[in-house]
Amino acid sequence: MKKIKVGVIGAGGISHSHIEAFRQLPDIEIVAISDPNEAKLAFVAEKFGILKRFSNWEDILKEQIDIISICSPNVFHAQQAMVALNSGKHVICEKPVAMNVEEAEAILETAKRTGNKFMVAFCHRFAPHSQFIKKMVDNGQMGEIYYAKASCLRRRGIPGLGTWFTTKKLAGGGPLIDIGVHILDLAIYFMGCPEPELIIGVTYNKFKNQAVDGGWPPIWSRVGDKPTGTFDVEDLSAGFIKFKDNSTLFLEASWAGNSETGLKIALMGTKAGVQYSTSSHPPLKIYGELNGVVTDTVAEFTSKNVYHAEIEHFVNCVKNNTSWSCSNNLAMAKP
Amino acid sequence: MKKIKVGVIGAGGISHSHIEAFRQLPDIEIVAISDPNEAKLAFVAEKFGILKRFSNWEDILKEQIDIISICSPNVFHAQQAMVALNSGKHVICEKPVAMNVEEAEAILETAKRTGNKFMVAFCHRFAPHSQFIKKMVDNGQMGEIYYAKASCLRRRGIPGLGTWFTTKKLAGGGPLIDIGVHILDLAIYFMGCPEPELIIGVTYNKFKNQAVDGGWPPIWSRVGDKPTGTFDVEDLSAGFIKFKDNSTLFLEASWAGNSETGLKIALMGTKAGVQYSTSSHPPLKIYGELNGVVTDTVAEFTSKNVYHAEIEHFVNCVKNNTSWSCSNNLAMAKP
Amino acid sequence: MKKIKVGVIGAGGISHSHIEAFRQLPDIEIVAISDPNEAKLAFVAEKFGILKRFSNWEDILKEQIDIISICSPNVFHAQQAMVALNSGKHVICEKPVAMNVEEAEAILETAKRTGNKFMVAFCHRFAPHSQFIKKMVDNGQMGEIYYAKASCLRRRGIPGLGTWFTTKKLAGGGPLIDIGVHILDLAIYFMGCPEPELIIGVTYNKFKNQAVDGGWPPIWSRVGDKPTGTFDVEDLSAGFIKFKDNSTLFLEASWAGNSETGLKIALMGTKAGVQYSTSSHPPLKIYGELNGVVTDTVAEFTSKNVYHAEIEHFVNCVKNNTSWSCSNNLAMAKP
Amino acid sequence: MKKIKVGVIGAGGISHSHIEAFRQLPDIEIVAISDPNEAKLAFVAEKFGILKRFSNWEDILKEQIDIISICSPNVFHAQQAMVALNSGKHVICEKPVAMNVEEAEAILETAKRTGNKFMVAFCHRFAPHSQFIKKMVDNGQMGEIYYAKASCLRRRGIPGLGTWFTTKKLAGGGPLIDIGVHILDLAIYFMGCPEPELIIGVTYNKFKNQAVDGGWPPIWSRVGDKPTGTFDVEDLSAGFIKFKDNSTLFLEASWAGNSETGLKIALMGTKAGVQYSTSSHPPLKIYGELNGVVTDTVAEFTSKNVYHAEIEHFVNCVKNNTSWSCSNNLAMAKP
Amino acid sequence: MKKIKVGVIGAGGISHSHIEAFRQLPDIEIVAISDPNEAKLAFVAEKFGILKRFSNWEDILKEQIDIISICSPNVFHAQQAMVALNSGKHVICEKPVAMNVEEAEAILETAKRTGNKFMVAFCHRFAPHSQFIKKMVDNGQMGEIYYAKASCLRRRGIPGLGTWFTTKKLAGGGPLIDIGVHILDLAIYFMGCPEPELIIGVTYNKFKNQAVDGGWPPIWSRVGDKPTGTFDVEDLSAGFIKFKDNSTLFLEASWAGNSETGLKIALMGTKAGVQYSTSSHPPLKIYGELNGVVTDTVAEFTSKNVYHAEIEHFVNCVKNNTSWSCSNNLAMAKP
Amino acid sequence: MKKIKVGVIGAGGISHSHIEAFRQLPDIEIVAISDPNEAKLAFVAEKFGILKRFSNWEDILKEQIDIISICSPNVFHAQQAMVALNSGKHVICEKPVAMNVEEAEAILETAKRTGNKFMVAFCHRFAPHSQFIKKMVDNGQMGEIYYAKASCLRRRGIPGLGTWFTTKKLAGGGPLIDIGVHILDLAIYFMGCPEPELIIGVTYNKFKNQAVDGGWPPIWSRVGDKPTGTFDVEDLSAGFIKFKDNSTLFLEASWAGNSETGLKIALMGTKAGVQYSTSSHPPLKIYGELNGVVTDTVAEFTSKNVYHAEIEHFVNCVKNNTSWSCSNNLAMAKP
Repeated sequence: MKKIKVGVIGAGGISHSHIEAFRQLPDIEIVAISDPNEAKLAFVAEKFGILKRFSNWEDILKEQIDIISICSPNVFHAQQAMVALNSGKHVICEKPVAMNVEEAEAILETAKRTGNKFMVAFCHRFAPHSQFIKKMVDNGQMGEIYYAKASCLRRRGIPGLGTWFTTKKLAGGGPLIDIGVHILDLAIYFMGCPEPELIIGVTYNKFKNQAVDGGWPPIWSRVGDKPTGTFDVEDLSAGFIKFKDNSTLFLEASWAGNSETGLKIALMGTKAGVQYSTSSHPPLKIYGELNGVVTDTVAEFTSKNVYHAEIEHFVNCVKNNTSWSCSNNLAMAKP
Repeated sequence: MKKIKVGVIGAGGISHSHIEAFRQLPDIEIVAISDPNEAKLAFVAEKFGILKRFSNWEDILKEQIDIISICSPNVFHAQQAMVALNSGKHVICEKPVAMNVEEAEAILETAKRTGNKFMVAFCHRFAPHSQFIKKMVDNGQMGEIYYAKASCLRRRGIPGLGTWFTTKKLAGGGPLIDIGVHILDLAIYFMGCPEPELIIGVTYNKFKNQAVDGGWPPIWSRVGDKPTGTFDVEDLSAGFIKFKDNSTLFLEASWAGNSETGLKIALMGTKAGVQYSTSSHPPLKIYGELNGVVTDTVAEFTSKNVYHAEIEHFVNCVKNNTSWSCSNNLAMAKP
Repeated sequence: MKKIKVGVIGAGGISHSHIEAFRQLPDIEIVAISDPNEAKLAFVAEKFGILKRFSNWEDILKEQIDIISICSPNVFHAQQAMVALNSGKHVICEKPVAMNVEEAEAILETAKRTGNKFMVAFCHRFAPHSQFIKKMVDNGQMGEIYYAKASCLRRRGIPGLGTWFTTKKLAGGGPLIDIGVHILDLAIYFMGCPEPELIIGVTYNKFKNQAVDGGWPPIWSRVGDKPTGTFDVEDLSAGFIKFKDNSTLFLEASWAGNSETGLKIALMGTKAGVQYSTSSHPPLKIYGELNGVVTDTVAEFTSKNVYHAEIEHFVNCVKNNTSWSCSNNLAMAKP
Repeated sequence: MKKIKVGVIGAGGISHSHIEAFRQLPDIEIVAISDPNEAKLAFVAEKFGILKRFSNWEDILKEQIDIISICSPNVFHAQQAMVALNSGKHVICEKPVAMNVEEAEAILETAKRTGNKFMVAFCHRFAPHSQFIKKMVDNGQMGEIYYAKASCLRRRGIPGLGTWFTTKKLAGGGPLIDIGVHILDLAIYFMGCPEPELIIGVTYNKFKNQAVDGGWPPIWSRVGDKPTGTFDVEDLSAGFIKFKDNSTLFLEASWAGNSETGLKIALMGTKAGVQYSTSSHPPLKIYGELNGVVTDTVAEFTSKNVYHAEIEHFVNCVKNNTSWSCSNNLAMAKP
Repeated sequence: MKKIKVGVIGAGGISHSHIEAFRQLPDIEIVAISDPNEAKLAFVAEKFGILKRFSNWEDILKEQIDIISICSPNVFHAQQAMVALNSGKHVICEKPVAMNVEEAEAILETAKRTGNKFMVAFCHRFAPHSQFIKKMVDNGQMGEIYYAKASCLRRRGIPGLGTWFTTKKLAGGGPLIDIGVHILDLAIYFMGCPEPELIIGVTYNKFKNQAVDGGWPPIWSRVGDKPTGTFDVEDLSAGFIKFKDNSTLFLEASWAGNSETGLKIALMGTKAGVQYSTSSHPPLKIYGELNGVVTDTVAEFTSKNVYHAEIEHFVNCVKNNTSWSCSNNLAMAKP
Repeated sequence: MKKIKVGVIGAGGISHSHIEAFRQLPDIEIVAISDPNEAKLAFVAEKFGILKRFSNWEDILKEQIDIISICSPNVFHAQQAMVALNSGKHVICEKPVAMNVEEAEAILETAKRTGNKFMVAFCHRFAPHSQFIKKMVDNGQMGEIYYAKASCLRRRGIPGLGTWFTTKKLAGGGPLIDIGVHILDLAIYFMGCPEPELIIGVTYNKFKNQAVDGGWPPIWSRVGDKPTGTFDVEDLSAGFIKFKDNSTLFLEASWAGNSETGLKIALMGTKAGVQYSTSSHPPLKIYGELNGVVTDTVAEFTSKNVYHAEIEHFVNCVKNNTSWSCSNNLAMAKP
């Protein structure tokens, strides 16, 4: 069988996860990588033995490549995705999909027009507990989900302090667009992708003067970085979303704050509720009722690399020309 | 010293707590009680040896009484409070203060005009942990509080199913006005009584057809009740409040839902955060920082009857002609 | 309404539980009690204000009585039950039903012939978790139950050491007939009352020389007892039962042994399993599967006095002339 | 010193453990391995650098070899063991020793006749806690052991689903002969190898239609396997054994069932009891008595590779011409 | 049988425990009580129905009394004990025995000369775990005890702040003589009452200015007290004792300090060690060795009222004219 | 920049930690190592690629070396340190600094005279929790520290049984000089290096006849060792130190004893107390008071290699010609 050829744009921390996931799969060859930071480019290319290396991402698109994996800072996602799609590539793009709604819609339009695959890399969807919750919803075991909360709080966890992560014109925003986007996506994925009707939100930046780098992405992956020190995005954001189907979602995300650290998603359905909380053990709990008695159910899952599952899914979509359910909405998932 | 004379309007479950608290104090005499339900009136009057008993609450106000304790259903609070104040009584009134803002403002106006004391019975304020948090705020130990969450959820806890509690025209609402009002009051008390700028909220009633009485108020206190079976208020409500000082409060309250049961208040300040959660042990935790290291602090309190403290405080206000801090806003605390 | 009249035979520890349960019910009057031990008879009769007192149980049956509660040593159960039934009384009899199969069958025959109610007092059936398990079985939620274990072990818990409890000619046996009979009954009740095909069993008495009284029945209830010191029954027994429907039950019961103390019942069904274990918290756990994932479910119950429920059930059977499901087999439940 | 030469028959999962254990020892050389599956043979031989490789196990016995390690499917154990013994080799054979009693007795007879060493690889005996319990028994610290339970249950743990493990004609049976044999051996080893007098047993296969491979032996070790899909052995078995010395053993083993997963052995002695349970922490608990007070004692052990200890023991038996206590019975340990 | 007559000197908190303990026993009559505080005298005498009441303790000794229980402040112990012994009474005296060694020796001399019983009320000795440890020592199960630690620390637990407890001339000292004396006595009781050779000690009073009453003795027992506010004893003391048999004891006691609260005794013997710690569960742990493996053993005890056991023991000594082992040293146990 | 050259004297277990720490740093070259044990010398030199190897430590001092790391047995520390200092080297020396006070003072004098750096390798000081406690003290957050306890007990942990560790003439002592020196140093470091006024101490050797090697230093590091079997030092020691500033320290250290294993340091200050205990989780707890309420505070630290921090600190002292606070006292820290 002919190998599927992959090119990677961006050699930051997340590119390691993408590349390792592609390498688990048969019939895949990673042929090229690009990054303007020479040191970082060399580091990743050497580590994984990638032969072609480019400073300009435009050059990588001139290669004979089937799949482009976009691992660059947020500001580049839309342009790179559209150029790649237009040049006949399938694209998997790191979250967030883009800087704003207009960009996201333009990508979607391009994907539809070209017929090439486009997927945002929402790895949390591929966790076993996420798939389990989704099945509960789809099988009607939760009844109607009318109320949800999604929370991703960090006590001291500012990523890449002073790099593009904390620079508004490069990142588009702070914790909401960085980690809040994961749980927002998960919540609406579970809720059946309802349409928002009313949104209210707040943002704060209270740790500007006492900000500490949270150690993510891994320090060893920051080869060649020259941080500017900018921190002009929020450190906490919260919002309240009323959907057209009358359901509600409360959402909060922070990089820093005097609170517990943890990711939590709670869904209340008319038949059952679920709560996934990384600070509980086991993390997933189902609130149900059996024969008139209130029950608590736990389910433990074998651990699984979500990047492997995500990449494998996308490759299968490409191979079999299939689509991801709810994919239009997914790409639109936005703060 | 002359005894202070107390009259109680309403002989439901909460009247037991008020009466027991008054009886702990010296120089207090409970002289009269009224309730239209004869069986209930007799039960409470016998239990506590209260000599004068009235079917009509208007009659009790004709007595030589210093303090009126209003323990009646919500719909009567405003009228009873104003008549009592106008007849020269000091009034302690169960929460919620009234059915709506207009009523609440009318009470306040009456209290100011007559110069008599009026206090809403927010017993949670008098818990040792509440006083501790308040001191932390007042001493500046939390810095600026900019983000708060207040949650009071019950899995299966509908009070007095089919009685006035679940009847809109008598109660004014469901869990928000019944228990949400406690945590709303606490939160804004801690936050310094900021003025709301923008409020968004939702309510649901999903358990109408599978509602189960939650056992509160105690079954033994429901002597003579003849439930109508009505349940036309919400069973879950949630809201998001932006204050004029730029702080935010997320609020949720339920009587029934597929979630954990518990009361939780979280405050995030620039110097420290606190979380009070009845499902943690110990319930109060302080998120701080010391010498550059993140710290978790717990403080355990000796148990204390909050009704005793609440009533004692009010009696002292009456005796010493003092006022409760933040009292205007307190009375206005409303869903 | 005319009061139902109750007579109690035997004034030992368990008679307190029966009498307290009868007194909770309306329309019940406890009119007489008998016991050959004068001190014990006086103690119980005084405590509960029972007017008629007899040394001979035969005398109590001459009274105008509707229900006889048999609380005497095992050796008397069969004779007393049959005489009571024949004299037109309904009978609730403490476990074990009798000393052997022949006696048990004779009681059953008498009950059928006279048409009077007869129930063995298996209080464990009336616990909320037992009713919950029974519903799971009846609703098919466990699938086919093919394998079960029932265990009731005590480390140092010999009841009434040296009294009738440990005297073979009065008790008929040791832990198997005393406490094993409870869990044997529960197990076959849950399993649908299958018929045994093959039984193998063993008994041991290893603590004869180091036996210590386990404190049950309560020391205060042993008024007037004059222990003989006999201990000629087993202290541990175990058995393996193959039923005609091909299911299996392993059973063990001990009063003394170098093991953990606890009561445990485990049922394995093709769809789900349950384990009730007094040394776990919470004691009931359901082993199931949901959407291809293995799940553990717990259900917590409000506490309930099983004697009250048991006696209330029997009184209702008498009042409404109804029967207890599986009642023939129940009476036959025997070591 | 001359090296002891070792040959291995069978290149399945367990052969890795044997080979690694032999390699820990000085003066040992693994010279040959055989397996009819070419891929598997190559995989293991390459991994461990074993030079001589044979498709037919008969060929390996023609080599200059001192010790044969039999790691083949159960059906081959007896023939291979006897041929090896007759050709002058010492033999360590994986459990179960054979398919039935006749085979086992034939092996034993051959071992006695040839004077060569033969040991069944019961690795659990070599665990530190097993040695500790054995010492307690031998030192009389448990008194007389009269009652024992041995349980090895898996919730979802069918090994090699569809391979020889689940094929009756190759494996001889299911969980009883696969894992039950370990705990049966341990129990009778602790109990002093009593002779059985009466045995009753049951087997079930309820998961035939919903069987899931349990992941053991490790998937990576199954190189070249071509599963047939057969599953004609039991998935749960239980038995009750009465020994001639009047002691009793209850035994249960499962590969699948709606129960907890775990291995548990409980021994009740007249002076003390022990319970070893992999689901407790620490797993070993001693139930004793000291100065008239009931005591619980725990002993924690340093972890130890049981395969290393087992193989080292056998090599020492060969080197020093010593025997394993209770070895005749050991070989006879059979379902 | 003639009743034994008891008189009580002192009506403070501890007198309640003594009186309740005496009342549990048959053949005992409490005939008189004395206290200079009239309110307190009346309170206790009324509560327990004691007929004769005296302001002066000298008057009680003129009564026909067999046993005197001394419950007065420390400063009076020696004089009261000696007068009582000389007037023919048996004496049980609260700890500490006296203000200093000279007083203690004078008491002992008087007891020996008169032949009347004298016992210091060290209630901790009578706890089941204390008796268990003592048996371990006496049976040689601990080997030689060479090193011990005894600690009784309170974080905020100053007794009777401002009363005689914290007044040096009435109490003789602070936590060492109040609570340290309990654990000092226990330790040397366990160690076999060795003779001290060298003692070094320190005391501190750091909480003088922030002292808070610890709530003991119970506030309700302080009827009629008029605290002076004095606090001139230590709040923490520690010492190191070398005994003539070469063993060592470290001792510490505090009423206030920034530490954990708890009572702990650790004994290290050549064969085993024990640790009793009120902040562990269960509190008693034995560090031993069995068959070459290190073991931890726990023993749980049924709860027991130590005052009842203590008083019963003394009454039996009086009845049977027996002595308490180690009693000479006991009386000498002193800070 | 010119590389700093390092030589290591002694190739025992601790040399591995030193060498690995030096290798983490830039600008460092390990050029030589010495040890009289040829096998051990070769093992370490090969492992780390150290080119120059000497049997005699005198030879290493003739090399062009900047820093000498002394990792030899205690008896050699003083002589090697002084010769090294006199030959112009900076010296980091393993604890204990020397065999006695005279040697320690001679080293200090030499260091002062030569102006070369000398540091004792007290690695515990560099743990994050130690630095945190030190800051609390220095910032006045603990008030005055008046009472401290330092404990390092092992149940069965004799290091290098029969090697120089347990030989008095080579080691100088047992657990006190080996591990007690760590906690003694820490305690006085935290307490502000007060001067001792009075010391009392005891030592025991009760495990001489049942001593078991504790597995430290790692068995693999003992290449070429030929243990003599001597064990003539203590196995437990305890002491009580009164300082001139009136504070007190209780100290205990053991290698073997029937007690818990663990390291614990408790400091009581007038404002707060701390307890660091390796058997608690988290190990560090602060006992404080906030707004009149007693508080417990925990702080969790990221793990850190203390050897890396220690060596880095010393190298920086050398590079920047700075000194370690409290260094004179530190070197004097002695049993």
